[in-house]
Order: sequence, then structure tokens, then C-alpha cells
Amino acid sequence: MLEKFRFLTAGESHGKCLMAIIEGLPSGLEIDLEFINSELKRRQQGYGRGGRMRIESDCVEITSGVRFGKTLGSPVTLVIYNKDFENWQKIMSSRAEDETDEKSFTAYRPGHADYAGSVKYNQKDLRNILERSSARKTAIEVAVGSVAKLLLKHYGISWSSDIIQIGDGKTEEEFHSEIDKAKEAGDTLGGKFQVCFNNLPVGLGSHVHWDRALDGKIAQAVMSIPAVKSVSFGSGEDAYKIPGSQFHDEMFLKDGKVNRKTNNAGGVEGGMTNGEALVVKAVMKPIPTLKKSLNTVDSSNMTETTAHFERSDTCAVEACSVVAEARIACVLANEMMLNFPCDYI
Amino acid sequence: MLEKFRFLTAGESHGKCLMAIIEGLPSGLEIDLEFINSELKRRQQGYGRGGRMRIESDCVEITSGVRFGKTLGSPVTLVIYNKDFENWQKIMSSRAEDETDEKSFTAYRPGHADYAGSVKYNQKDLRNILERSSARKTAIEVAVGSVAKLLLKHYGISWSSDIIQIGDGKTEEEFHSEIDKAKEAGDTLGGKFQVCFNNLPVGLGSHVHWDRALDGKIAQAVMSIPAVKSVSFGSGEDAYKIPGSQFHDEMFLKDGKVNRKTNNAGGVEGGMTNGEALVVKAVMKPIPTLKKSLNTVDSSNMTETTAHFERSDTCAVEACSVVAEARIACVLANEMMLNFPCDYI
Amino acid sequence: MLEKFRFLTAGESHGKCLMAIIEGLPSGLEIDLEFINSELKRRQQGYGRGGRMRIESDCVEITSGVRFGKTLGSPVTLVIYNKDFENWQKIMSSRAEDETDEKSFTAYRPGHADYAGSVKYNQKDLRNILERSSARKTAIEVAVGSVAKLLLKHYGISWSSDIIQIGDGKTEEEFHSEIDKAKEAGDTLGGKFQVCFNNLPVGLGSHVHWDRALDGKIAQAVMSIPAVKSVSFGSGEDAYKIPGSQFHDEMFLKDGKVNRKTNNAGGVEGGMTNGEALVVKAVMKPIPTLKKSLNTVDSSNMTETTAHFERSDTCAVEACSVVAEARIACVLANEMMLNFPCDYI
Amino acid sequence: MLEKFRFLTAGESHGKCLMAIIEGLPSGLEIDLEFINSELKRRQQGYGRGGRMRIESDCVEITSGVRFGKTLGSPVTLVIYNKDFENWQKIMSSRAEDETDEKSFTAYRPGHADYAGSVKYNQKDLRNILERSSARKTAIEVAVGSVAKLLLKHYGISWSSDIIQIGDGKTEEEFHSEIDKAKEAGDTLGGKFQVCFNNLPVGLGSHVHWDRALDGKIAQAVMSIPAVKSVSFGSGEDAYKIPGSQFHDEMFLKDGKVNRKTNNAGGVEGGMTNGEALVVKAVMKPIPTLKKSLNTVDSSNMTETTAHFERSDTCAVEACSVVAEARIACVLANEMMLNFPCDYI
Repeated sequence: MLEKFRFLTAGESHGKCLMAIIEGLPSGLEIDLEFINSELKRRQQGYGRGGRMRIESDCVEITSGVRFGKTLGSPVTLVIYNKDFENWQKIMSSRAEDETDEKSFTAYRPGHADYAGSVKYNQKDLRNILERSSARKTAIEVAVGSVAKLLLKHYGISWSSDIIQIGDGKTEEEFHSEIDKAKEAGDTLGGKFQVCFNNLPVGLGSHVHWDRALDGKIAQAVMSIPAVKSVSFGSGEDAYKIPGSQFHDEMFLKDGKVNRKTNNAGGVEGGMTNGEALVVKAVMKPIPTLKKSLNTVDSSNMTETTAHFERSDTCAVEACSVVAEARIACVLANEMMLNFPCDYI
Repeated sequence: MLEKFRFLTAGESHGKCLMAIIEGLPSGLEIDLEFINSELKRRQQGYGRGGRMRIESDCVEITSGVRFGKTLGSPVTLVIYNKDFENWQKIMSSRAEDETDEKSFTAYRPGHADYAGSVKYNQKDLRNILERSSARKTAIEVAVGSVAKLLLKHYGISWSSDIIQIGDGKTEEEFHSEIDKAKEAGDTLGGKFQVCFNNLPVGLGSHVHWDRALDGKIAQAVMSIPAVKSVSFGSGEDAYKIPGSQFHDEMFLKDGKVNRKTNNAGGVEGGMTNGEALVVKAVMKPIPTLKKSLNTVDSSNMTETTAHFERSDTCAVEACSVVAEARIACVLANEMMLNFPCDYI
Repeated sequence: MLEKFRFLTAGESHGKCLMAIIEGLPSGLEIDLEFINSELKRRQQGYGRGGRMRIESDCVEITSGVRFGKTLGSPVTLVIYNKDFENWQKIMSSRAEDETDEKSFTAYRPGHADYAGSVKYNQKDLRNILERSSARKTAIEVAVGSVAKLLLKHYGISWSSDIIQIGDGKTEEEFHSEIDKAKEAGDTLGGKFQVCFNNLPVGLGSHVHWDRALDGKIAQAVMSIPAVKSVSFGSGEDAYKIPGSQFHDEMFLKDGKVNRKTNNAGGVEGGMTNGEALVVKAVMKPIPTLKKSLNTVDSSNMTETTAHFERSDTCAVEACSVVAEARIACVLANEMMLNFPCDYI
Repeated sequence: MLEKFRFLTAGESHGKCLMAIIEGLPSGLEIDLEFINSELKRRQQGYGRGGRMRIESDCVEITSGVRFGKTLGSPVTLVIYNKDFENWQKIMSSRAEDETDEKSFTAYRPGHADYAGSVKYNQKDLRNILERSSARKTAIEVAVGSVAKLLLKHYGISWSSDIIQIGDGKTEEEFHSEIDKAKEAGDTLGGKFQVCFNNLPVGLGSHVHWDRALDGKIAQAVMSIPAVKSVSFGSGEDAYKIPGSQFHDEMFLKDGKVNRKTNNAGGVEGGMTNGEALVVKAVMKPIPTLKKSLNTVDSSNMTETTAHFERSDTCAVEACSVVAEARIACVLANEMMLNFPCDYI
């Protein structure tokens, strides 16, 4: 849990709604609802997304902590109602008397939380794990990240993200053709993307204790996104083969201030922002739900079988980058609040 | 701060000693001092280390929390005395009257914490940042990790680490020749290494909330090691170009239990251990202190100059892997204590 | 934030609803909705409560984390809708265009959060502080505490609470007459109450580090209840005048087990439960909103005036004791989960 | 663990030393060693203290985080060596081969951590609990609190403490005679004391979430002091019998600013400092080690017997108030750093 920008999220994939409570915000922060909804929309886009995306059109409702457009300083609650809940009301009912086998499944899906989760939580119906492990919960995380972004905007901080590679493709056209090929084969693809934050003050994070290093906190925030399997800063992923004389970002003077010509460090040195653009790269694994089935085990009778699947996407790298922006924004908002006084805007 | 296996470290590079307090251990855990010292020795080894390593021979003293060879359940204090302190006693004195310019420097070293740290902490003498940002502090972190390993051993958990690549070299012989070449050129090299933990129970971590995901916690622990710039799990770094039908680790039966033939996931699915080996890879950047100098800025008069350097190593990847083992062991010990009752062994 | 039983609450007094997210529960815990609602009802009762209580009849809705009557192990969301919201929708609107002066006030109410809160959060309209500082938010805290109680029940733990004194009254009849007298005079009364928890295992908490002491955690949970100004354990409040030979609870044998005849310690020794009943006493100050007005300052023009008031209660000690039970239950549920880790019931 | 002013303490009563690591301090804070040592001396004084106090004369050594009299911003380590360690070196040895029965005991001492601690940590020799549960560890807590006080001084905050009552005595002369009487009878006494902090800014703490209330945090810090059994604010302990019209501190104007004539609230309203003196009262129970013995159980053979005792004090209320000052100072320093973030002084 972050120290000042504290939040908890909740909600199952086919439950009534997704919710989040954010505690620790200053008062007086203007909450731009349109901005938050536009971020939710970005998360639902991207070439390679499947049918579900067209059904859902997420929008957020704020039920506490905001009055006349500004935060009060009290906890802010965000709610995203699942438009599809009607069809799942019985299946996801909280009442004991509604118990049903409908939509239950017992064949572990490789690459998902099914196996580990059912062992940990002692569950027979794997839906009981799927419902919370689904990437659906990242929708409310994007809403929370949008609020963090509103705070960062107030400090003049900006951001952007880009897809670097999907399959063998390195340009937008190649991304599309790689995705088309995968879709036809009933397969899925992951990808590598990059998120940048600009105009951060120097010195966020710290070198004095391992758990205060900013790159560590950001690595946790990004690696824990469902499907992310690799995180690096700047040219970090290649740093094993670049000699020191070429890797480290030399310092020069420009207008009397420290200036650099390269940014292999990705904006972090000694666990702190160094004034250069913060550059975070991540790799998302291919979505583990494919039309092409995978060999697995059916837990109900311990026999070999093939994996169950829900209607799904072929590639969701763009959405993943939106979630990564949101997660990093939360970490940065927390650091800003730790470093700069902030009971009110 | 981890929830149950709590610890704080302290100590400057040339200070009197490095210390750590570990709070939260169960009672009755046998503390094998020889094992801890052997871990400290491992950290000081590796082809490519410089002169300093031959001066220091670290060993730990336990000053609390252990009686007659076993933990009491009270906080354990570990101390590593700096054998070189005599020569630095005046320079690192805590007394105001001993203030001196000796060993001070003002030219920022690129790749180090100097610049960001001096801005954050308002320091003119960059030694005031160097002394704590130095990788020297990882010695006591390795001692702490050794205690964590003793707890993991108790649960039958084991580990290993290997260097995967240094420069263009992929075998031990090639590592040595790459390092020799760099040393001759007055340059430095980083490298890529891998750490594995075996026999972990299924279900450490959780899928239910982002900050309980085990891969996230491990990513923070490893990325925050000085010089680490990239972290991934299993085949994660390549996951952007491997289709789903090939990436996900299918499940089969063997002796009536779930069994896998591949481990691209690196032992983590849905933020939880899945019973396979936990495989963490990391990239260490080349050491930022080179004989070959780098362009920089002198903060005392804001002029362009070249970077100061202390006697240093050419390559410290092996040491970095020992530190990574230690950091991951701490995270895992914490998870074991969160998941299994443990006031006493 | 408690380590395992984590929760955040949200919601303004006259907002749309009160909400809480509880994260960290094991799966398989039966959630008895009737029990939770009966606890909410207890909170609304008590001789001396005013009109508002008859308007509100709180009941909770669970929107996540529970399926077919049992927890999934994922975050549980509790919602209590404010039945009066219709009348406040415009006044408490989150939209900038709805800004209004209606129901605003600027005269600080002594004994409330108004003054300190408006300085901290830079607010002119003191309603912006009142809405979150109101004891209304304890309704959702009682709901959260009820879930904690369900977990404690599972472990065979039970509880009770009693009022010890109100004004000069020490019996129920005297409580009522003291309250009647105060009501007639347009005044308010506080009171002293006691909460007991029985059948706790020995050793919850710890003596090894100050912040793990159970009495400390409970003291924080109870003292932070709006209007509580004193907390003690057992005969603690009188311990300054009782000699050691009479205060300490001697140990004897009964059926081969340790047995005590007194419980001045209130069930806690050395920061840990000792097997005796946990006895916590607290003093609630008189409600700071009286028909009889108090001298104060109007912040809008810095002139002396008298305090604004909302329709209010004369005495709310019984409700306060219900909130105290809930808060202590949360701390104890957290301790049980720390000491007897359970991912599933 | 406090959020910004983080610290861990360690050390057994008869171990080599007591130690603490404080992490999170700003750089540039002048560390006045004499002041810290004078605080340690205060803790050792007080009418009614026994022989041990004359043996120990505590003084602190700083081994990290301070250079030339000022903090670096890195973790600060404080060490207090136990002057008596020579006599206990074998008995408290960390080596398995030194195991001995010397100084061991098995009869639970009522009022101490012995019973609960031995059950929790599965210990036969109760010394293994005594050594850490002893109030000896409060010496290093006072040292940590002194550092916190140095930070508070920087903000112009001041403090004081007084004994209010011991036994039936309410003046210093009566304190002494009560203590003399108890000593003669081989008995012990506790007492009630008060700690005040002045010139705190308005708004430390918060009303928005239960765990951010300042009175809650202070209650935890004080209640967890060994032997404290009751904590209250201002006139809180009597608030159950004072009507609202008399309890709440009315507000007036003086020199154009808010001014009060009473301070029943003890300086906290709505969980926040309100500008008045922070007044915390606490009750310490009589020391549980008496010459007069108490009935108890011998755990080695489960028979009834009488309690073991070490040479001890008759009354330690003054020392307890020094520890309370220290604990509260830590909480306040943490709040100041949360509200007025400062990386450097």
C-alpha cells in the first residue's frame, strides 16, 4: 500500500460493479470526470481487441469525496457499473440460496491464476478465481490512475506511451499484420511498450533505503499488472552488453543548468528521478486465452484435457500500456505527496 | 517495508560499521553464523572485482535476538565492522568539530546517485551522497537475506543463481575474456543473470489485489538493487514475440499430480507461485565508475569537467546475483510467514 | 492500516452512500447479512438518541467478494445507502455547476473538527469538514466490524459491552433520568462504557516491539472513535492508587491449567493476551452539538458568535460502545490472521 | 510502523547493547549528543528507583547517518552499550555451545509478559521472554525520541511533563512519603502523569479516516509503554460526568485570532491538533516485581509457587513519563514530516 496515496480496489469481472476508494488526496483538486472517462475509453481500445470491448463502454460515477467539482480531502469513491450484470446476477449472486453450477468450470487454464488460486483459496469452481483475476479489474485501476494524473497535471507533469514491438512488427502497419496473422491462426500475441513521464522534479525516491528507491516501486506497480513479465528502465534491457563508457549519460551544461544528451538510465539514477524523462519499458505476454486450445488438467477428476476459454482478444498491448500509465501515475502521485506539502491545492 | 519480515539497514560505506535490525522472526530458528559469513564471502567474489575486495573480508556479529544459537523471537541485530574505518575515522566523524574538506568532491559522477541525491538532500560535498548510495550497503543486505534463507531452508526451499551473459560472452570462458578486454580499455561491463528458487509451495502472493502479487514484490526487491535496470520472470523478456500457443506452460498429469514440461512463466501465474521453479532474470548495468573518464559538471562552480572515481571493479555481476538472491529470499521469507503460522519453529 | 485485515471507508454524512472495501479476508467465510444489519441497528439505538435515528434504518448491500453466501478471498465491498440523499442531492453534488451556498455555515462548532479541519484543508464552508467528520461514518465501520466478528466467531471468540456510568448514574434507571435531565436543559451527556472479548487465544500481540503490542493497537482503534477521550484496560484507570501486591493478577492452578481469580490487567500483559477476558474501558465526551449554544467565532468575518447545530442526540454512549466493539473486532481479526494465517476457512 | 519517521529497536536487557535504526530523517538536522544523553539520564532518575539505576549510566553512540554533527538523510543508528554485559556474556551468549541453566527461571511473574510470551514463543526458560520484555528497552526508545525532539525543536515545538498522583499523594512531598511507605512494605506503586506539547501547528492528524486520527496514534504510542494501562486527553477521564455545556472549549477572539479559555479537549478535536496545548494523561500500574511475593505457577512442573524477582524499583512513574514524552515526540515528528515534507533542514 502506498504511504500517502492509499487505495483499495474491488469487484469481480461479472459482478455488479468495480469500485475503488482513494484515501489521502488533498482538498481542492479539480476532478475532471470527462478526463477519467476518456482514460477508461483508451483502455478499451486497441487493434486486436475482441467482441467484449464493444459491449462495455465504461464510465465512472463518483459517490464520495468530491463536492462541486473538487476534492474535499476525504476518501474518494469511484464506481464503474458492469453493464452486463443483468445476465450474471444469478450466477454471481452473494446469496447462498442462489448457488448454481451454471458457468462453472474445472479445467485449469494455463497462464492464468486458476491453478495457483484454486490451491491457495481452496476453490473447486475455477470461476471463483477467474472472476477476480480477470484483467477486467484494471478498468477501475485506470480510473484511480486518472485521479493520480489529475494531481500530476497540477504539478505540470505530463506523460505518453508507445508500442515498441508486437511479434516481429516494429511499425503500426506491421503491428496490424502480425495481429491479423495471429487472429487467423486462433492464436494470441503480446508486445513490448514504453511509458514516459516528463517534467518530474529531481529527487523523487531515495538512495538511502532499498524500499524507497523509485525504480523499485515502479517495477512493482508495472510487473504486477496481469500479463506483464518484464520491466526495465531506459536502455536497461540491453545494459548487459553495453560498456560503461557508452551506457552512462554524461552531463554537460546548457543555460547554466545540468543537461544530458542521452538517457540510457531512463530518468532514474540511484533510485531517484534525475530530471530526464522517466522511461519505463514493459513486456506483456500473449493473452493466455486462445481459440487454439492448450493441454491441461481437469481438477474435478484429475484427467488430462484441454483449456476452457471465454470470448477474448488477440492482442491487448495498447490497453496494457494504458494500465501501466495509470499504475505509474499512482506511484508518482504518492511520491509527489511525500515530497511536497499537500493538504490542499 | 515487508509486513512480517521487517528490517531496516544502516551504515555508510566508510563508516564504522553496517547494521541491520530484523524484526518479526519466529523463535527457535537456528542461526548458522558460518553460513551467513559464507554468503558475505560470495558477495565479495567474482572475476572482474577490483582491489577493495581483497582488503575487506566481511564477517557478521550478532548483538541481539539470538541466544544459544537460536532466535528468541525478538529483533535480531547484525553488525559488519568496516575493517578500513581507522583510515576514515576523522573523515566520517559524527562530530561537528571534525569537519574537513578531505576526500570531498563536487563533480557529479554520471550513473550514480550524486546529482539527484545532492539536489534532494541539499548537499555540496557529494561524498555525503556517495557514502550511503555506494553498493557497500548491499553487504548487510546479504547478511539479512542469509537469515531469510535460513528460514526458507527450514521449509525445504532451495535456490541457485547463474550468469547468463556478460557483454557478448555466454560461457564462463567468454565472460572472463570480455572482462579482460574491458579492464584493459579502462572500461566496465554489466551482465544478465538469473536466480531460481525451488520447492516453493503453490499460492504465495495473491491475484486479488495488485500490491499482493508476488512478482510485483520481487520486481521491487531486485530492481532497487544498485545498478539493476531490468527484471523479468521466466522467458518474460522475449514474451513480446512468442505467440500464446507456444508461451503458456501447458499442464499434464504425472503421478496423479499437475506437471509441466515448460516454464516460460518463470514459476509465477496470476501473481502467485504455481509450483514450478521461480525464475527471476535481471540485467545489471556496467559499473558507473571507470578509469576511462566521463564528461560531467562540477557543482561547485557549474563548469564542465570529467568524473571523479574511486578504485573500482570492472564487473560485479556475480556479486549482484548474490544480492538478488538475498533480496528475493527476504520477500519469500515474508510470504511464508504471511501464509504459514510462525511464532516459533 | 492493519497488516492483513485491510480496509478503507468512504462517504459523507449526507452523501449518496457510505462504502467500505475490506481486503485480505480468507475465502469460505460465511457472510451472515442479517447479523451485519442487526449490528447496524444496534448502533442506531440507545436511550437519548434524537430524531435522525428514526429516519435512517441502515442496511448493508454487498457488491463484491461474496458469492453464494461465502467470501471468495477477493476484496469485499459493503455499501449503506443514505435514505435521505434525495433531499441532499443538489447540496452534496459532485458537479461544479451545482455549487450552492445552501446549508453552508461558517461558525466553528467547539468540540468538532470544524476549526482544525478548515485550517488543514483550507475550507471556507465548514460543511465541507462536517460531512466527513460526522459520526455518521461509524455506520460503515460497524458493518466492517461485523465482518470481523464473523471471522472471530469462527474461532469461538465472543464479546459483550456494557455502560458503566452516565453523568452520576450507575444503573440503567439512573442513566435514563440523567439523560432526561440533560435533554430538558438542552444539554448533552457522555459516559463510560466497557467492551469485553472472551476466549481469545493466549499470545495475540507481542512484547518484542512497541508497535506490535496489542493494547497499543486497541487503544488506537478506540481512541480514534469520534468523541472518545479516554481508554484503559481492566482496572487501569485506577492503577495509580492500587499497590502492586493488590493489582497484579496472581496465578493458580485449576484442572492442571493456569487460572486467575482477578483480572485487573484486563486480559493483556506485556502487550499480549494472557487468556483472561480482554476488558477495554472507554470514556465518551458529551456530544458537542447542544440546543444550549456555545460561544464561538464566525470564520467568514472573524467575529464572536454562537455555534450552529444540526438536530441531534442527547446521549449516544450505547452507539459508541457498538462502534468500539466493531473497531476492536477489526484489530483482533487482524491479529488472528497474523497468528493463524488462513487463506481459506 | 510510522510512515515517514520509521524506526526499529533491538536489544535484550542483559545483552551486549541496545540499538535503534531511524530511517526517514531529513539531512542537515543538528544532532546534539549531550541532549540525547541528558534525556537518557532523566529516564534513569526519579524518587523510588532501585539499585540498578546507579550501576547503569547510559550514553549513546551514533554509528551511522550523522557526519560533522548533522544528519546526512541516511539511516541513523543509535547504540547504548550495557555496562554490565561482562557479567552476562556467557549467560546471554549467541553461541549454541554456551547454553546454560544459569539465571534461568520457570515461575511465571504475574503482571509481566512471562506467561503469554512463553506460550506464544514456546519457551521453557522464562528469561528468554524477560530479556526483551524488560523496561530496559525503553532506554533506546528515549534516545530515538530525543532525535524526534531535535526535529520538533527545529519547528519551535516545546514540551513538559508532570506527575499528577502517586497512590494517594498529590504533591511532591506526598509522592515521596507514599513511595517510602510502599518501599518499607516491600510493595510497589504506580502513578498518573501528564505530558504536554506546545506550539504545534493546527491540523496535524486528520478527521477523514480512523487510522489518521492523531489521538489514536498517540494513544497507541503511550498505551504500548510497558506498565501503562490508561491513556486520556485533556479532561477526558472525567468526560463521562461533565455535561456538554461545560466540557466543550468555547472559542473567542483575541488579537483577531481564535482563542480559548479552557482546554478540556486536551488540544485535539476531530482527530487533529486545534492549536491548544496537546495534553496527554496516562496511568502507570505498579511495578509487577515486588519484594512481597505473589502467588503463581511454576511452568516446569505445573505446581503452585511464588514469583521470582530481580532487584527492582518501588516506583518508576517519572521514568515512565520520560518514555511517554519520547514516544509522543516520535508520533509528532512523523506527523510534521507528513504535513511539512522536508528532505533537508
